[in-house]
Amino acid sequence: MRATLLYGAGEVRVETVPDAEIVESTDAVITVTNACICGSDLWPYKSMEPSEIGRPMGHEAVGVVEAVGADVHTLKIGDVVVMPFAYSDGSCVFCHEGLHTSCLHGGFFGNADVGGAQAEAQRVPQADGTLFVLPAGKDDALMRSLLTLSDVMGTGHHAAVAARVGPGKTVAVVGDGAVGLCGVIAAKRLGAEQIIIMGRHADRITLAKEFGATDVVSERGAEAVERVKELTGGYGVHAVLECVGLDQSMETAIGIARPGGAVGRVGVPQSETIPASRPAFFENITISGGPAPARAYIEELLPDILDGRIEPGRVFDRVVGLDEVPNGYRAMDEREAIKVMVEP
Amino acid sequence: MRATLLYGAGEVRVETVPDAEIVESTDAVITVTNACICGSDLWPYKSMEPSEIGRPMGHEAVGVVEAVGADVHTLKIGDVVVMPFAYSDGSCVFCHEGLHTSCLHGGFFGNADVGGAQAEAQRVPQADGTLFVLPAGKDDALMRSLLTLSDVMGTGHHAAVAARVGPGKTVAVVGDGAVGLCGVIAAKRLGAEQIIIMGRHADRITLAKEFGATDVVSERGAEAVERVKELTGGYGVHAVLECVGLDQSMETAIGIARPGGAVGRVGVPQSETIPASRPAFFENITISGGPAPARAYIEELLPDILDGRIEPGRVFDRVVGLDEVPNGYRAMDEREAIKVMVEP
Repeated sequence: MRATLLYGAGEVRVETVPDAEIVESTDAVITVTNACICGSDLWPYKSMEPSEIGRPMGHEAVGVVEAVGADVHTLKIGDVVVMPFAYSDGSCVFCHEGLHTSCLHGGFFGNADVGGAQAEAQRVPQADGTLFVLPAGKDDALMRSLLTLSDVMGTGHHAAVAARVGPGKTVAVVGDGAVGLCGVIAAKRLGAEQIIIMGRHADRITLAKEFGATDVVSERGAEAVERVKELTGGYGVHAVLECVGLDQSMETAIGIARPGGAVGRVGVPQSETIPASRPAFFENITISGGPAPARAYIEELLPDILDGRIEPGRVFDRVVGLDEVPNGYRAMDEREAIKVMVEP
Repeated sequence: MRATLLYGAGEVRVETVPDAEIVESTDAVITVTNACICGSDLWPYKSMEPSEIGRPMGHEAVGVVEAVGADVHTLKIGDVVVMPFAYSDGSCVFCHEGLHTSCLHGGFFGNADVGGAQAEAQRVPQADGTLFVLPAGKDDALMRSLLTLSDVMGTGHHAAVAARVGPGKTVAVVGDGAVGLCGVIAAKRLGAEQIIIMGRHADRITLAKEFGATDVVSERGAEAVERVKELTGGYGVHAVLECVGLDQSMETAIGIARPGGAVGRVGVPQSETIPASRPAFFENITISGGPAPARAYIEELLPDILDGRIEPGRVFDRVVGLDEVPNGYRAMDEREAIKVMVEP
């Protein structure tokens, strides 16, 4: 089958690899109908050391079940499924607590162990726990939004949950990438009163406003902090969604949080430390978040997508075939595209 | 009047200074009957640069109101009061939210602005909002526990609240100082099932067990993390009370937290960054806490003290007069004493 591999910074190749197949009896194999490129894929795309062995890429997919292992009981061939970016057994203590990304028998897609989803097919461990069967026969626009349940919409929602967004709260979203935009959707959906999008790309800002952003801050650093405070009576916001993962964005996030507020971080941190320990401490600011248990959130978010109340699929502003995936990485890295969907 | 001043590391002096007096119409002046030395006083005691101008020390007190300004309406001369370590107006948005340490008109005791409580008397700004009137005529043992409402018991409670301690939860307390010991009391009081005290001083461990600790871990660093995991089925604890403030203690705190767990930090952080950003992120560990809104917690904790259900005053294992305060600092710094009460 054809699959995407990364051989080093900027070195994305689509190659023929052995077909995805059942390894464990709890596995399934899905034909990937829709995949995408993630903001987190851009970190290795920017910085990975050259390697002889390509790293399989992609961890978000909608697909069709084409094979199941002997111990898979809830799925059948032909089911249309969403595949969250982490696999999980659905039965361990952490899955029961809704933290599927810490599943005792879980792991992540997009690596040599299980392969990646920017490919014609994907092996899915713990298939019963991992895959979510979708109502079949949906149109293309809806499919784009359903695909976001695999990661980006669940991640935006997780940032909002971790930042304790709720009715009447003031919210800021740091980062205008696809996750940040889904964070705006999530904040609006959870009842936020004021939603400040922090970014500077006209197309993204426009979309953020359509999703519910009430204010825009395009400054950075100390100026951004000052501007957010001006917009919030001098106090800062109750909830900050940190959707970048850099020291500067985290420092800004803490700087714009109101005393007693919370930062929900979902941008994969690029540092071993969190900055602004003392400001965060003295203002009792909570820092929370991590990889989103996307699997846990599907039940909650799906009805809103099916009913058209939220349209996270609008973050996809480019669609490519598998052979065009390298160009998709380039387009996202150069901010030509917000998020690229792949149709293998 | 006589008061305690710090002139540099190790340089504690008790000197005659101008009497505390009303400056603003919202001030009161209290005669200090009971004060104490705080673990946080030991940071400048260890590290303050030599200074010509002494820094007034002390921020915890029980006292008697001896004067009130023209705009003080809820206090009268002779009232016995607890003075929390931060002053607050009791009426701003943050006080209403229970975060008195971020009061818009608030501040902290133990500095040149307002003076310190290791003294015969203390000026108290925002007296109506700050001081809490106690039922009069209490015995000495009870007075010790009431004094802890000014800081150490409220701070231990805050750590537990920030770490989301609740019924059935597993808890670890990093640090066996007076705050950590009060953290044990708080965790027990909030219904924790397992309480692991992490420390190595026999007298403190004994007291921790009497307060409700179920397990003791005396190892440090990676060994401590391993030991806590052994005691918790391999998972770590739901709630960590970080009562030290050093990088090592914070790293341990994050290391022993269970996925999805929380660290409530109340030890004043000695670094500008929080370590272990990536481990915390990947396990969705929440980092919360800060200066305790001790004023907010008095209503909740007082009945348990008056009824003898909790006895935080037992953390005081030495009592000194004002002239012996320098020796009290030395005793706490050398771990001869857990916490020193001062009777001016």
